[in-house]
Amino acid sequence: VESELVDYLRRRIGSHRLLKLGPGDDAAVLRMANVEECVMTVDVLTDHVDFELAEIDPKRAGRKALAVNLSDLAAMASEPLAGVVGLVLPKSGGMQLAVDLYEGLLALAEEFDVAIAGGDTNSWDGPLAISVTLIGRVTQSGPLLRSGAVPGDRVLVTGSFGGSILGHHLDFQPRVNEALALAGRYRLHAGIDVSDGLSIDLGRLATESGCGAVLEAEAIPIRDDARRLAKELADGSSPLDHALGDGEDFELILAVAAEEAERMIAERPLEVELTNVGRFVARPGLWLADSSGGREPLSLRGYQHEFD
Amino acid sequence: VESELVDYLRRRIGSHRLLKLGPGDDAAVLRMANVEECVMTVDVLTDHVDFELAEIDPKRAGRKALAVNLSDLAAMASEPLAGVVGLVLPKSGGMQLAVDLYEGLLALAEEFDVAIAGGDTNSWDGPLAISVTLIGRVTQSGPLLRSGAVPGDRVLVTGSFGGSILGHHLDFQPRVNEALALAGRYRLHAGIDVSDGLSIDLGRLATESGCGAVLEAEAIPIRDDARRLAKELADGSSPLDHALGDGEDFELILAVAAEEAERMIAERPLEVELTNVGRFVARPGLWLADSSGGREPLSLRGYQHEFD
Repeated sequence: VESELVDYLRRRIGSHRLLKLGPGDDAAVLRMANVEECVMTVDVLTDHVDFELAEIDPKRAGRKALAVNLSDLAAMASEPLAGVVGLVLPKSGGMQLAVDLYEGLLALAEEFDVAIAGGDTNSWDGPLAISVTLIGRVTQSGPLLRSGAVPGDRVLVTGSFGGSILGHHLDFQPRVNEALALAGRYRLHAGIDVSDGLSIDLGRLATESGCGAVLEAEAIPIRDDARRLAKELADGSSPLDHALGDGEDFELILAVAAEEAERMIAERPLEVELTNVGRFVARPGLWLADSSGGREPLSLRGYQHEFD
Repeated sequence: VESELVDYLRRRIGSHRLLKLGPGDDAAVLRMANVEECVMTVDVLTDHVDFELAEIDPKRAGRKALAVNLSDLAAMASEPLAGVVGLVLPKSGGMQLAVDLYEGLLALAEEFDVAIAGGDTNSWDGPLAISVTLIGRVTQSGPLLRSGAVPGDRVLVTGSFGGSILGHHLDFQPRVNEALALAGRYRLHAGIDVSDGLSIDLGRLATESGCGAVLEAEAIPIRDDARRLAKELADGSSPLDHALGDGEDFELILAVAAEEAERMIAERPLEVELTNVGRFVARPGLWLADSSGGREPLSLRGYQHEFD
């Protein structure tokens, strides 16, 4: 029952310099004296939509629930501070499931030095829903927004894209340290993380910046998983289609002035690859350019939650 | 769909002094320069458990989702700052439901000057789940904890108890202003809000404080709804049983030294009634005393989420 889970959390969650009071009271108490501005974000993940609990180790689901939030903080180039977890558990098997979810989540929290401050645990006759809320510290570089790209800026991306459903969507590394390193060293105009799809998320960044973007088809880094998936599906979709539309890559898209982009690529400041995949243009819209110089409008492919 | 709801929120959520950046980016940005310590809490509410959407105006469900979190901040005697909302919507009718939930929630947010900073919206083939996370500012009095009661302290409560299922559990007023007023003027040793039941929540406070408590049966303020419910149910339960065990009263239980408690009751600092209902004792446990001087052990009645 609920109280046993609270006991587990109080034992399991160690001390953290930010945590004046951890789980077990009506709210946690956090030390915030050095935080001028904070970012705050929430994501809710559900069984059958964001993962299939019947097919995976629940630790990976718990890890993902925190990782997608860390990716949001990476997109803001902000430093993770603390988080809280809301669970809605199926009544049967809920206790073991909750512990497994927390074990996966807490391992990643330790890796990123995030204080898990507390949570709320509920049960019902239904599938699992898990909500994670994170707060983070805005660094001296300021928050990285979607709205700062200007025509002429290059489109830089970390990593590669496509086929995340084969496993990457659970085990990806949120680009927090990469975002902080880049924001500390270079002038970034805008940023977003790729949760719903490279094309749809680039489109969002461009729209918020009041401009458009052209992607170079041959420059887009394609994951091996995208090739595998295209082959397995054999439905006429290409690896590039998967790179543009699959989503859940949780890589960063950055808008950077042309010269700064050249410098960043030459200096290779990250372990992960940084690639120039196109440029921002004044005309609103999204285009895909091929090597022959042709250019076609690109539909915003990617995942959107549907409800009416 | 998801993007329409984001557009609605960006139009609907006005400016707030704390909000440097509201909904629409990967995270919201909050001004926190005057916050030394913050409290953080999350609650997840679900259809059929915390309300029945088929029977009520969904605005009341949205209001409740924020109100239970405000009640947690009241229990910490902290000042609400900002919150984020996570929704899992049924696919059919989800858009109108989301707008109604937000309308109810935002009206209460305005009343308590809480900045709703953003949210995440998902859909599935299942009932509604709504998660609200709040952060608040710890005031000069410090956070009010569950662990500060000492034997001899009086048990003070705001308001009255029982029968909240008849409507109060949706429309209660979180005791934020009352908690801040009392903490600013008197020395409070410990506090908790009554979410699961007067007896179980008093038991939690006593346990955290390493002591026990004796309640005076005749002193407990009983809501008219508790009397109505006892009569309607006609199952042998008394109005006092409902006051002790129903839960969702969202009143405050406070531990205060005997003299300070007398002063508080004499000075009537609140509009809502403040009642001395018993005292803390050294021996761990919970007892109910009657007017004849008898005393019997009190089982911790109240709501607990069950899962195994």
